[in-house]
Amino acid sequence: MVESQWRFGGNSKVIRAGAMTLRGVMDGVMKILDENDGRGVIHLSQGDPFSFPCYRTAAFVENAVSNALRCANFNSYSSTAGLSAARSAVAEYLSKDLPYNIASDDVFLTNGCTQALEAALTVLACPGANILLPRPGYPDYKARAAFAGLEVRHFDLVPENDWEVDLAAMEALGDENMVAIVIINPGNPCGNVFKYEHLKKIAETSRKMGILVIADEVYGHLTLGSNPFTPMGVFASIAPIITLGSLSKKWIVPGWRIGWLVLNELDGILTKHGIVDTIKGFFNISSDPVTFIQAALPEILLKTPTEFYDKIVNLFRKSADKCYKLTNDIPGISCPIKPQGCMFLMIKLDLSKLEGIKDDLDFCCKLAKEESVVLVPGEFLCQNL
Amino acid sequence: MVESQWRFGGNSKVIRAGAMTLRGVMDGVMKILDENDGRGVIHLSQGDPFSFPCYRTAAFVENAVSNALRCANFNSYSSTAGLSAARSAVAEYLSKDLPYNIASDDVFLTNGCTQALEAALTVLACPGANILLPRPGYPDYKARAAFAGLEVRHFDLVPENDWEVDLAAMEALGDENMVAIVIINPGNPCGNVFKYEHLKKIAETSRKMGILVIADEVYGHLTLGSNPFTPMGVFASIAPIITLGSLSKKWIVPGWRIGWLVLNELDGILTKHGIVDTIKGFFNISSDPVTFIQAALPEILLKTPTEFYDKIVNLFRKSADKCYKLTNDIPGISCPIKPQGCMFLMIKLDLSKLEGIKDDLDFCCKLAKEESVVLVPGEFLCQNL
Ligand SMILES: Cc1ncc(COP(=O)(O)O)c(C=O)c1O
Ligand SMILES: Cc1ncc(COP(=O)(O)O)c(C=O)c1O
Repeated sequence: MVESQWRFGGNSKVIRAGAMTLRGVMDGVMKILDENDGRGVIHLSQGDPFSFPCYRTAAFVENAVSNALRCANFNSYSSTAGLSAARSAVAEYLSKDLPYNIASDDVFLTNGCTQALEAALTVLACPGANILLPRPGYPDYKARAAFAGLEVRHFDLVPENDWEVDLAAMEALGDENMVAIVIINPGNPCGNVFKYEHLKKIAETSRKMGILVIADEVYGHLTLGSNPFTPMGVFASIAPIITLGSLSKKWIVPGWRIGWLVLNELDGILTKHGIVDTIKGFFNISSDPVTFIQAALPEILLKTPTEFYDKIVNLFRKSADKCYKLTNDIPGISCPIKPQGCMFLMIKLDLSKLEGIKDDLDFCCKLAKEESVVLVPGEFLCQNL
Repeated sequence: MVESQWRFGGNSKVIRAGAMTLRGVMDGVMKILDENDGRGVIHLSQGDPFSFPCYRTAAFVENAVSNALRCANFNSYSSTAGLSAARSAVAEYLSKDLPYNIASDDVFLTNGCTQALEAALTVLACPGANILLPRPGYPDYKARAAFAGLEVRHFDLVPENDWEVDLAAMEALGDENMVAIVIINPGNPCGNVFKYEHLKKIAETSRKMGILVIADEVYGHLTLGSNPFTPMGVFASIAPIITLGSLSKKWIVPGWRIGWLVLNELDGILTKHGIVDTIKGFFNISSDPVTFIQAALPEILLKTPTEFYDKIVNLFRKSADKCYKLTNDIPGISCPIKPQGCMFLMIKLDLSKLEGIKDDLDFCCKLAKEESVVLVPGEFLCQNL
């Protein structure tokens, strides 16, 4: 076959976006692993410690899914936004923490929080629009924004200030083409939990700027310190909020691929601005989450015993304490801020004490090669690559 | 809140694409249904008759998924392209019908055939590229192509010729920006099954035109007449093929959202042209199919007893025969070509005998309103709307 006769080629936008995701950036580090290291690989790069047996989800949660599968009523396609009982369950579950009730019509079920963030960014990507992302942040936002054609601007989370948003800098970045800000709380990768007052200020600043808030609460309720979890939706009367979440982390089942995108719009702003119709369009062209897993949501969201959550949060707290202590015991590396939430900690390298290490990427590559331990280089998370 | 202060709006590309999907086009017809009609709605618009108890999947198939769920080894994220045992199983399953063996590396697991077609079209959507779609066809191809920025050209399936492709017309449509042709076999919505010789000619014409073939085989093996099913991959030595499929139809579980995109590239053409790397990029930015359902694929694909398939095909054949006969008994409507595959039939209206009916859209709307029976207007499938 004459090679040059073929006319097709790969869409370079896809390659570029794929390379920016956590998976994309980690591909390079993973290639460095020594296949002959008999100790096995320790993966600390993804929010997924769930291959360890102590992180098994509750039998109750598995039963809910298994029963929905077994009854054979949920093998068919679901409707575009999801089964109505499942949408109601998400609305009821989230409303418990809010001063008002979410309507089930404002809930869209997704393939995990990954598809929820895809939906939110794709829907907002009008020509010329830009979006504010946190730095450090979760790389997939930048990847998806790039793919959707949304210009990205970064605001800093300030470590000296408990990783709070630099609000003045946030406001300074705004212009008439800015459409939204992404807030991840509890925070990946900083392991921080925003205080009620700070979230309120973010909402007020967003209102001043005329932008909506995309609140990634995939780690919702996973708080380890003294700051309680405040859902951004509490401030929906200040600015319109799109809340994203999933079962992945709190129920420790990231492989189940079920999540939600929820509109917190108290006065129809999102409808009036065409966002609701656009979200419906997005779900028309997209694949839905598995129907029988949707069908298990009422049972899982509304009836999981609180002991299960307590157990999980205690496990995360113990792990975080241990990592924090052990990290600070190693010369040349430290963890200045104790993690307050989710399952990550940020490590500081003192390069003057780390012989032969150029930078954080170099450190992570050598750690992967010599010790088969996989970390995410901070540079990736600061979106500099 | 002053409404005009808000700066965001919905991405009109998403709305347009959403409206072109089967779901989007059917929204209008569904709105017409009479909610007070106590007889209940008969949905004949989607490839999903599975709410009827006789179409329940095999206990064996449900057990495979339930066991994978129960063992708790598959609650974690899967790798980007899918679990390797599941990829191998798809490769082995498809290779049974081919003169060569597919490598498991050439298999990518997807959220149903819907995500597989999204991946194929998105990956090929270089600026200026165009693609050939069948008319009548499955509307979601046009929707996804529009969203990805691929220009669409249509070739006709000729009813007088058993719905075969008009090859001369196909060739005449080609130019240097054409990248691929989509072939759906067995065919939705025509219910046809292409003969071996005809598929070979399609491959040869594609080769002449320098384009690849996207072979949608979501209805693979669901043949009701004398034409056996030939997978397009048989002709991979003539032109490169991307095969799309899923469990949805043959195992009658469309709600499970598991499918595949498979490269049939015998001499590295797809790799050399950057398609393989672009596909990897696509799956980096996308949500995966459920891990425990992936884990059940080896059991389902390689061990489902043939009696199950025979039973299903017999059910489809009986339904098709019945619909064909009953349709032809009704004055003013007819089904000129007996369905040979999958689960659809095309109906011809004789407007001279149908009093007060303007066209097929009008017919479908009135049928929905008066009888609560939902059909897809042929106009939608001919992509004229
Ligand atoms: C901040 C953040 N958002 C979204 C996701 C994706 O979540 P899911 O597994 O539900 O798709 C992750 C996963 O690690 C995450 O850390
Ligand atoms: C031709 C064709 N392709 C793809 C699909 C989507 O299949 P899945 O349910 O596996 O996503 C359908 C569904 O009806 C179809 O008819």
